[in-house]
Amino acid sequence: MRYSQLLIPTLKEAPSDAEVISHKLMVRAGMIRQLASGIYSILPLGLRVLRKVEQIIREEMNAVGGQEMFLPSIQPAELWQESGRWDFYGKELLRIKDRHDREFCYGPTHEEVITDIVRREVRSYRQLPLVLYQIQTKFRDEVRPRFGVMRGREFTMKDAYSFHANEQSVQATYEDMKTAYNNVFRRCGLDFKMVEADSGTIGGSFSHEFMVLASSGEDAVVFCDACGYASNLEKAAARAVSGTPASNGAESLAEVSTPGQKTVDAVTGFLKITPDKLVKTLILENENGLLAGLVRGDRQLNPIKLKNLLGCEWLHPAAENVIQEKTGLPVGYVGPVNLPLPVYADHEVTQMQDFVTGANKIDAHFTGVQFARDLKVEQVGDLRTVEEGDPCPHCDGGVYQIRRGIEVGHIFVLGTKYSDAMKAGYLDENGKEKTLVMGCYGIGVGRTAAAAIEQNHDDKGIVWPVPLAPFQVVILPTNYSDDAVKAAADTAYRHLTGLGVEVLLDDRSDRLGVKFKDAELIGFPLQLVIGPKNLEQGEIELKTRNTGESATHPFPAILDRIPSLLDAL
Amino acid sequence: MRYSQLLIPTLKEAPSDAEVISHKLMVRAGMIRQLASGIYSILPLGLRVLRKVEQIIREEMNAVGGQEMFLPSIQPAELWQESGRWDFYGKELLRIKDRHDREFCYGPTHEEVITDIVRREVRSYRQLPLVLYQIQTKFRDEVRPRFGVMRGREFTMKDAYSFHANEQSVQATYEDMKTAYNNVFRRCGLDFKMVEADSGTIGGSFSHEFMVLASSGEDAVVFCDACGYASNLEKAAARAVSGTPASNGAESLAEVSTPGQKTVDAVTGFLKITPDKLVKTLILENENGLLAGLVRGDRQLNPIKLKNLLGCEWLHPAAENVIQEKTGLPVGYVGPVNLPLPVYADHEVTQMQDFVTGANKIDAHFTGVQFARDLKVEQVGDLRTVEEGDPCPHCDGGVYQIRRGIEVGHIFVLGTKYSDAMKAGYLDENGKEKTLVMGCYGIGVGRTAAAAIEQNHDDKGIVWPVPLAPFQVVILPTNYSDDAVKAAADTAYRHLTGLGVEVLLDDRSDRLGVKFKDAELIGFPLQLVIGPKNLEQGEIELKTRNTGESATHPFPAILDRIPSLLDAL
Repeated sequence: MRYSQLLIPTLKEAPSDAEVISHKLMVRAGMIRQLASGIYSILPLGLRVLRKVEQIIREEMNAVGGQEMFLPSIQPAELWQESGRWDFYGKELLRIKDRHDREFCYGPTHEEVITDIVRREVRSYRQLPLVLYQIQTKFRDEVRPRFGVMRGREFTMKDAYSFHANEQSVQATYEDMKTAYNNVFRRCGLDFKMVEADSGTIGGSFSHEFMVLASSGEDAVVFCDACGYASNLEKAAARAVSGTPASNGAESLAEVSTPGQKTVDAVTGFLKITPDKLVKTLILENENGLLAGLVRGDRQLNPIKLKNLLGCEWLHPAAENVIQEKTGLPVGYVGPVNLPLPVYADHEVTQMQDFVTGANKIDAHFTGVQFARDLKVEQVGDLRTVEEGDPCPHCDGGVYQIRRGIEVGHIFVLGTKYSDAMKAGYLDENGKEKTLVMGCYGIGVGRTAAAAIEQNHDDKGIVWPVPLAPFQVVILPTNYSDDAVKAAADTAYRHLTGLGVEVLLDDRSDRLGVKFKDAELIGFPLQLVIGPKNLEQGEIELKTRNTGESATHPFPAILDRIPSLLDAL
Repeated sequence: MRYSQLLIPTLKEAPSDAEVISHKLMVRAGMIRQLASGIYSILPLGLRVLRKVEQIIREEMNAVGGQEMFLPSIQPAELWQESGRWDFYGKELLRIKDRHDREFCYGPTHEEVITDIVRREVRSYRQLPLVLYQIQTKFRDEVRPRFGVMRGREFTMKDAYSFHANEQSVQATYEDMKTAYNNVFRRCGLDFKMVEADSGTIGGSFSHEFMVLASSGEDAVVFCDACGYASNLEKAAARAVSGTPASNGAESLAEVSTPGQKTVDAVTGFLKITPDKLVKTLILENENGLLAGLVRGDRQLNPIKLKNLLGCEWLHPAAENVIQEKTGLPVGYVGPVNLPLPVYADHEVTQMQDFVTGANKIDAHFTGVQFARDLKVEQVGDLRTVEEGDPCPHCDGGVYQIRRGIEVGHIFVLGTKYSDAMKAGYLDENGKEKTLVMGCYGIGVGRTAAAAIEQNHDDKGIVWPVPLAPFQVVILPTNYSDDAVKAAADTAYRHLTGLGVEVLLDDRSDRLGVKFKDAELIGFPLQLVIGPKNLEQGEIELKTRNTGESATHPFPAILDRIPSLLDAL
């Protein structure tokens, strides 16, 4: 292709709202333009990259028996009511009324639609397992869209769904998908980790995320420096402590005055104790009402672990006015002793003696609290968020590292969550009606491209991994109106195109400096610089974007070596 | 691919709401399933066909310098307000409010979005012309979705937009597009006509439709049997009549009583005259109010011709209550004599003498009306819908034929309609600000596939043109559990796949009759029937779907001939 015929509106400046490098560079390199908050137009150069990601995904999905289909973006409310998610999904679901006032949504995901198709069309165990996927546009009405296509509202996603006769079959496909996903991200040239993850709003029993490590990542990835165990921070297990609560300590329960001291820092400073001598009491709310969670004063309660322990549908910190209306308890001075709410404690709390808690009275705390003597606890579990340096629960001697990560893929064993709700069954070998077992598997297409930029850039611009580059080679004639230069550039263009290389010929009349800057910004893996002086010596210059190395080579002989040079990058 | 691994839910019966053959067969062949009215899931076999149509379109768009991009489906109301279409588009525009109550629509077309991009990114005549296109999902909230994917609400469309410095440049691209569109539909194996068309709600100065001839078509195509002129019925010109009105006839104006006679048939029957002795008066409404259109009693007024004559924004027949409220005129007895509304007459009316019209009084008509003496007409023009057998205005001796057609493509010269409204300009050679000139070009992807079925089917099912077939060859082992048959089928599958042929191996254990029926229904161009008896003779059977011809051939020698047999179909 010729540069002059392509719409590549490069910019010197990034938009003022761009916080991360991939957003800045995708806009500056003329790949995307914002149409509205979280909604982007994909320009020709951007589409070339996205289509490469899509094609890699498609090949890997087909390799594990996936069948591509294309489901509607507009979905009827009835299906979401059947699954129970119409009310549950909240404002992120873009709800729409058609001309007849019927309710629809713009699909943020497609479990309902695909389950509806399969329950109608699949009758027998002989049709199973079934792996269906699509590469399609989703809409999620994010509160705060940001980071360009990384957290947009309208975005392209590959979503796959599998249907099985039993748990064993879904586990086998789940393993296939792990392989396929590893292949996809490896082929995209990414440095990533597969980590254990929570199933979140999609639901289900088991899940892994694929995280591209990058400092701009919105997620925290926990991994052991010894055994390689890796997990999302939400999910990462703390090493278990002794199952038996510590014996009672020496102190007896005493109420002390702590006027105006509401936070852990304030109370411990005031009482001159370390935070590990205090038990933090958090009041949360779920579908059954209020409850309390306890962690050591220097720890953070992890609501997702507590939600999973309880098996409840939702759980979040209770609002201050809700706490006061329902219990009359003074926020900032709440403690577990004689608390009129169910209490759940992190393992570590069971090992504490002589600790401090709120006294459920304004300006008062208890000291000398003992776990066994003073607390009535419903259940004990792993409820805290792990920290860098924590011992790994899966090996001896390993400790946790924490890095930032971008979630580019997520795979789930859903079990029968949707097939139960929507009555999706099949007939087994004995003609008996059984419930389908499901899995689902997503990849963010634009986010994968953006993550590649987060990992592959320098101060001049993008440094594309070859498999995702919009063009593999750019030809930069120093002066395209010079006959000899033009002839050589055209020869190189034709020859490389004939070899199956994707080439962009920068035929613009702009200054050479402009062309060089654009080439660096857009990040083509190889630059062929063709100028009259080198040509007189029968040479052209070849520059490698990722190393910045440049050397002259005999022309046209060098052209035949380009494909192998690209392979070696 | 193996049949057993694909979701191909074929059906014996078509859905009860399916009116046209393509809808019936696409559902029966397991290509599509309805999710909601006018909203369809595309199943694996259907997607294979649509992707072939898309790829043909993509190649032809690239061949005329088109650059592919991907624009958002959700578009902000502000852009549509700028172009003036937010209020004008009516209920077909699916309007949406996001979580912050901001107004958006699901794009039924993308003139606004692309014009917004180009006005921001294009500054100089040196960047022109520019041809941008996408293959993307649209939503049009049709009153009565029908005919499956042919007139769905959510559908895939290729839409291209071109931007130019002047009219001459847009005309050149328009001619390129004609060629590209002819190539697309020819390559899809369709029998089609390019016809002159009205620009409709898209607006603009000049347009052609590509019509696939089929009895189920919703549009009427007019063409001359001699000179080849072709047009949409809405647009087809009637041959002009003498420019001079006929002289007054012999009769004088007389009011006659026509109690209860409101229609042309009733009045002419009652008065014992032929309909060509009556002038029909239709009251219409546009943005300026009410007006009257006159045609001969045996003709139909064509509101689109009248709208174009007037150059108004919209025009439709006035509702009876509106006519009575605003004028007090008695519907059924309205006539042009002393009518207190602007009157527009079809050419033919000017040639009439001694005719009948309504008398603007209940139960009364005038006879002996004369054009020159009795009527006050604002303007005369070609206002009637042409009819089969009408003389062609473009040649001597040709007459109009009328056939049904399916509109699969539509190309427009838009001129400056959008660039004026949205202030999209560029700097010319002299640094002067000029307005961009635009064209736009659409193809319905699903509709093209459906139109191919309308033209290529028999009572057994679809007869795919080779370029659109989901698989070119189906291998039908009579008994896949027979070792020799299985070995031969597997050999054929591998060999043909190696030759680049798309093959489906029907490895199901179903009865042979079921497999044959499915193969005929789905319509693979070639069937390879592999059975033990033929194999013993070193032969297999080859059946051609479109001719129904079948013959045995030496195996495996026949395999190498398959690609050329497919080319010849």
